[in-house]
Amino acid sequence: MNRPQELHLPKGYRYATVYARIRKAKKDDVALIVSDTPATAAAVFTTNRVKAAPVLLAQANLRKSKGKVSAILVNAGNANCATQTGDAVAQETCAAVATALGVPAEQILPASTGVIGVEMNPALITKSVPKLKNALKTGTFMQVAQAILTTDLVYKVACAEVALNGGVVRIAGMTKGSGMIQPRMATTLGFIMTDAALPAPLLKTLTGAANEASYDRITVDGDTSTNDTLAVLANGASGVKVTKDDEAIFGEALSRVAQDLAIQIARDGEGARKLITIQVSGAADDAAAAAIARSIANSPLVKTAIAGSDANWGRIICAAGYAGVEFDPRKVDIALQDTVVCEKGLAAHFDEPALKKALDSTECTIDFVIAGRGQGRARFWTCDFTEGYIRINGSYRT
Amino acid sequence: MNRPQELHLPKGYRYATVYARIRKAKKDDVALIVSDTPATAAAVFTTNRVKAAPVLLAQANLRKSKGKVSAILVNAGNANCATQTGDAVAQETCAAVATALGVPAEQILPASTGVIGVEMNPALITKSVPKLKNALKTGTFMQVAQAILTTDLVYKVACAEVALNGGVVRIAGMTKGSGMIQPRMATTLGFIMTDAALPAPLLKTLTGAANEASYDRITVDGDTSTNDTLAVLANGASGVKVTKDDEAIFGEALSRVAQDLAIQIARDGEGARKLITIQVSGAADDAAAAAIARSIANSPLVKTAIAGSDANWGRIICAAGYAGVEFDPRKVDIALQDTVVCEKGLAAHFDEPALKKALDSTECTIDFVIAGRGQGRARFWTCDFTEGYIRINGSYRT
Repeated sequence: MNRPQELHLPKGYRYATVYARIRKAKKDDVALIVSDTPATAAAVFTTNRVKAAPVLLAQANLRKSKGKVSAILVNAGNANCATQTGDAVAQETCAAVATALGVPAEQILPASTGVIGVEMNPALITKSVPKLKNALKTGTFMQVAQAILTTDLVYKVACAEVALNGGVVRIAGMTKGSGMIQPRMATTLGFIMTDAALPAPLLKTLTGAANEASYDRITVDGDTSTNDTLAVLANGASGVKVTKDDEAIFGEALSRVAQDLAIQIARDGEGARKLITIQVSGAADDAAAAAIARSIANSPLVKTAIAGSDANWGRIICAAGYAGVEFDPRKVDIALQDTVVCEKGLAAHFDEPALKKALDSTECTIDFVIAGRGQGRARFWTCDFTEGYIRINGSYRT
Repeated sequence: MNRPQELHLPKGYRYATVYARIRKAKKDDVALIVSDTPATAAAVFTTNRVKAAPVLLAQANLRKSKGKVSAILVNAGNANCATQTGDAVAQETCAAVATALGVPAEQILPASTGVIGVEMNPALITKSVPKLKNALKTGTFMQVAQAILTTDLVYKVACAEVALNGGVVRIAGMTKGSGMIQPRMATTLGFIMTDAALPAPLLKTLTGAANEASYDRITVDGDTSTNDTLAVLANGASGVKVTKDDEAIFGEALSRVAQDLAIQIARDGEGARKLITIQVSGAADDAAAAAIARSIANSPLVKTAIAGSDANWGRIICAAGYAGVEFDPRKVDIALQDTVVCEKGLAAHFDEPALKKALDSTECTIDFVIAGRGQGRARFWTCDFTEGYIRINGSYRT
């Protein structure tokens, strides 16, 4: 997967960002992604009972517009969640953008990220709309990818070109997120654009599958946010339709882009120095494998051990043990960086200093293999747990 | 609840500790609690699928002995879990103690705490048995309470005297634990002795109720250990029977002792500076209230906010939102240190600098109230999350 500047971006999309003083740091905090023609859209949202106003409006708009999106309006610095005026703010800002673009208000998909519970002044955005519209002439995909960041240290983009029967189509995505990350069927914010043409039901199916293999397989801290949104737009500007024959190849490319983005979130977890890839196999089914992987990925003891390059596999088998799924500990092999540290549930002989050195890498792998007839497999990504996470999250909001 | 030295300990128990070189630090690491006559016993154990050898043997012994326990044999420094020889080690060491005491081997309740996956040399214990038996003459309750500690900074004991119809009985308990703490129906290690006489089924019921209100309501890091054991012994040495009339008062005293011990674990959480008490009310039922409380208590973002004295209630309502239970966010009030910070799901006006100062206390409270007809309530205890936790757990085992 290469960075988008080396590839062609999907046709028919324009981008814009402005600094609207929503966040204190002078860094663009409002962004617009516009599709020249209404795009077919699919989206998954947070499963948190507490849903931010933009999530609720995005869901309502998608229903009203029958899945058509002309623009994504996103701001960083304020989650517009748990506030008195949240719904009105989301509606008013979407309406202002819709008027400026000359499209129906329900074709605007809003998204917000930032602090929860602080009133957001809609005028900061509505007054910026003319400037935002003007910026569409020169704005870039990369500017938007940077404007949506909060505690992220790096921007996160991924793209693909896919040769279908009818011709080449392009997929490009961006995402953000570093803390409050355990999306569970959605993510913090992820936007994927393609210029392929495909019917809404198919896009929905492929988006769900892509999400399950990507955003639903990462955690930073086990905290599922109130604002998670993953939206996929398909505007057909390539003139290429995804045919029945192309579904698999297009779906796979979409999943790869989503997975690339999700892994970038895990790698950039708050305070993280290491990306941890967890592979579980031999579970009763994929869901059981994913539950074990998630339990390992969320264990602070596993994550601090990896931070300290400590081959403390006892914490790994312990975390698997409380995942809530059946397995026989006596059939478990565990490998770290491909070094077997646990065989049949017991300590294996290994070169501890050498493994410690191998674990100093910025990429660590945990393989958890249950011997037997189980076919369940899952891959999961998380990061190590360091003092940096505490520092970032223990500081006073103001 | 006072410390036991100010009260009378239960009659008919003797205590002993020795240093058997199981841990490196020269600090007693094997302890014995002996009941002069076989005590009626009830115990709850870890729900982790991976159970340590002493947990499995303790369960088998309790079945064989029909719930009679003459002695608890406990070691710190090695969990005797996920090792080749674990079962044999547990059996051999219990047998040596049984022979020395002249009681059936199935009346020994073993318990271990420490590192997982490292073979334990049984000779370290069996060779110490004569010394251990000799130490029973002078050993104290407090010595055992200290010998069972690992990363704990303080010992944890609690006791009560209860006036029943037949006379006064005494309850005294000790516990350990600081990390890998989210017991779920059991704890890391907790031993409670009483000289009351009561039938096994009643003791079992009262122990279950006490556990539910105590060890099942704490978390440090969400990690459920492989060795959790809470055992309650009742040897009747007071000559006082718990009658039908006394059940409630005795059960309440037992619950108070268990709760006191559990709270001490939360307060001494690895790296913790603050005890956090979470009270949830107005949920559909007690289980729903406990699920919300547990979700808040396990959120690293809530725990780091409290560490930083940050009244970041958005993280609290967010954590409640992914607890997996139904509630209307618009009906939620949240108070920190009795200061209302969220009313009906929205930001309340409060004196932020004053609250920040109040949150600098070593005891913090979070009240989460759902308005409406729900009668579900729960109290839950956890601790703040600091760099200390990372330091303690990120260091290499060796």
